[in-house]
Amino acid sequence: MARKIGKQTYRPENPPVIISTAAIAGPFEGQGPLQPYFDHIYTDIMAGERSFEAAEREMALNACWTCMNKAGKTPQEVDFFLAGDLLNQITTSGFSAVELSIPYLGIYGACSSAGEGLALATMLVDGGYANLVLAATSSHNAAAEKQYRYPTEYGVHRKPTAQWTVTGAGAALVAPGGTGDGPLITMFTVGKPVDLGIKDVQNVGAAMAPAAADTLVRHFADTGRGPEYYDLIVTGDLGKFGKDLIKKLAVSKGGFDLSHNYEDCGLILYDTEKQDVHAGASGCASSAVVVYGYLYRRLMEGTLKRLLMVPTGALHSPCSVQQDDNIPSIAHAISIEKL
Amino acid sequence: MARKIGKQTYRPENPPVIISTAAIAGPFEGQGPLQPYFDHIYTDIMAGERSFEAAEREMALNACWTCMNKAGKTPQEVDFFLAGDLLNQITTSGFSAVELSIPYLGIYGACSSAGEGLALATMLVDGGYANLVLAATSSHNAAAEKQYRYPTEYGVHRKPTAQWTVTGAGAALVAPGGTGDGPLITMFTVGKPVDLGIKDVQNVGAAMAPAAADTLVRHFADTGRGPEYYDLIVTGDLGKFGKDLIKKLAVSKGGFDLSHNYEDCGLILYDTEKQDVHAGASGCASSAVVVYGYLYRRLMEGTLKRLLMVPTGALHSPCSVQQDDNIPSIAHAISIEKL
Repeated sequence: MARKIGKQTYRPENPPVIISTAAIAGPFEGQGPLQPYFDHIYTDIMAGERSFEAAEREMALNACWTCMNKAGKTPQEVDFFLAGDLLNQITTSGFSAVELSIPYLGIYGACSSAGEGLALATMLVDGGYANLVLAATSSHNAAAEKQYRYPTEYGVHRKPTAQWTVTGAGAALVAPGGTGDGPLITMFTVGKPVDLGIKDVQNVGAAMAPAAADTLVRHFADTGRGPEYYDLIVTGDLGKFGKDLIKKLAVSKGGFDLSHNYEDCGLILYDTEKQDVHAGASGCASSAVVVYGYLYRRLMEGTLKRLLMVPTGALHSPCSVQQDDNIPSIAHAISIEKL
Repeated sequence: MARKIGKQTYRPENPPVIISTAAIAGPFEGQGPLQPYFDHIYTDIMAGERSFEAAEREMALNACWTCMNKAGKTPQEVDFFLAGDLLNQITTSGFSAVELSIPYLGIYGACSSAGEGLALATMLVDGGYANLVLAATSSHNAAAEKQYRYPTEYGVHRKPTAQWTVTGAGAALVAPGGTGDGPLITMFTVGKPVDLGIKDVQNVGAAMAPAAADTLVRHFADTGRGPEYYDLIVTGDLGKFGKDLIKKLAVSKGGFDLSHNYEDCGLILYDTEKQDVHAGASGCASSAVVVYGYLYRRLMEGTLKRLLMVPTGALHSPCSVQQDDNIPSIAHAISIEKL
């Protein structure tokens, strides 16, 4: 197991390449500062479909097709489709797999799913099991609100700590090292779930920050790298309060200073001055559209060389919350480098 | 990609070993013909817990701990925990991962999850990314009925084609070839979702049979093996009607005769004469408890040498059904041999 470093981190023998990505946004997301980086912005939250769920599927498929088109690939050339989303039984991913007709392995890590997909894609490609893996994820504000909270028509008041589920989808194509000049996945750390007893679904940033800190500190310990190794470290969707918390936890748990090069995708995605998203963005698409849209472009343009992507997920369900269970969380760290 | 054979099938360079398994059953399952093969049978469907969901978690964890105990392994020695279940946001698996504290990758393939777990475990182990993977899955009749259909207290009438969700859990530990004398995972075929337009949630056997037939025919085409290569082929939970259908489809799609050595776990698990399960068993645990309990024992005793396990999953959700979507399905085929 020459590929394992330390306890939870892996270094591919031949680092796989992200040969293309796609980032698809909903109308509200398209009004934010990352507008120039999206491949498509829907002007209608229904995306011309008959339900929120069908709209999410349309966006997920758009991300997948766009990503393959950019690389000049067809579904027949893709070995595995790894996808996950927030809807019960990850139906967005399953129904997308039907249309794509690619051998399908469904994944679920809540909003950490983009990281789980990239970690698995790396292992399948570097392990000699795939030449091309399509990893995708999505979320839809109205579909998620309906399922996790209340119908939006109720106009239920939200706490200042509440976050805004991103409407959008992201996809990435991962191929063996040496395929084109895209950024490489040079290392990754697979997280353990962490449960610090948070029960408030309107404060998942606080629930997820300890998991993100745990994975980050583990990543640094396993690799010998510190935060300064990276040009940028981004968590998925900790939001305003989670971002403050992880900075404190990184110091207290490992003595790491995140104050210079750390951001949260949930705070990059919207203009938080003008767009009322309370504590920031959340949802599987948060890290996916920011990294596969904005940050992938920066990696390709050379304004960013070393990126650590840390998607974060809260592993609860409406049922578990109603039954008074805690909200455990998980995060995976993916080192993406363009050297 | 020397490991890929044909279009969807893979042959490990060094076939991984299933070094131990565990099969945990609910009270009703424990009254069936496989009673001697379960590691533990709960006498209470609540398993001493306060909810059906917590009971499922207790069973899943019991399967995981028992499986590790049998192999003399601790969670600290396990590289990855791959688990999935039927509950929304696969909370059984996520909460189990918290207690086990093993790096966690959640999976979802509905009742095909046991196959998805073994396929991924094989790739991670043979690909040089893991020395030990714990793959687990579970289902609980009352938790599933409540979520997918109606509260059982309503006493809603069920159609003759309806199936009975298994209460139980199964786990398997997968290690590199050469570790002990357990059966080997010698090949596997990853399925594509198939959608033939079935919409009846009380007839998922019919929805899943085409996916199982598609994967089986693909497995035979990719490998050059025919059904006669195997001592036994088992699907996960097609039930009585699905079993009839797949036999016809295997002939019409590929000219393969399944009449000699094919069974469905959903019909092996219960005494269908005495136990009223309508068309048979269903649920993630169906293939898991039959293969990890009964068939693993037969492999170790030498009364079975070549097994093809084909877990089958229906990729719908209650929401997708209410929205009049079809029920697409998927199946993976895992060749398990003790030679």
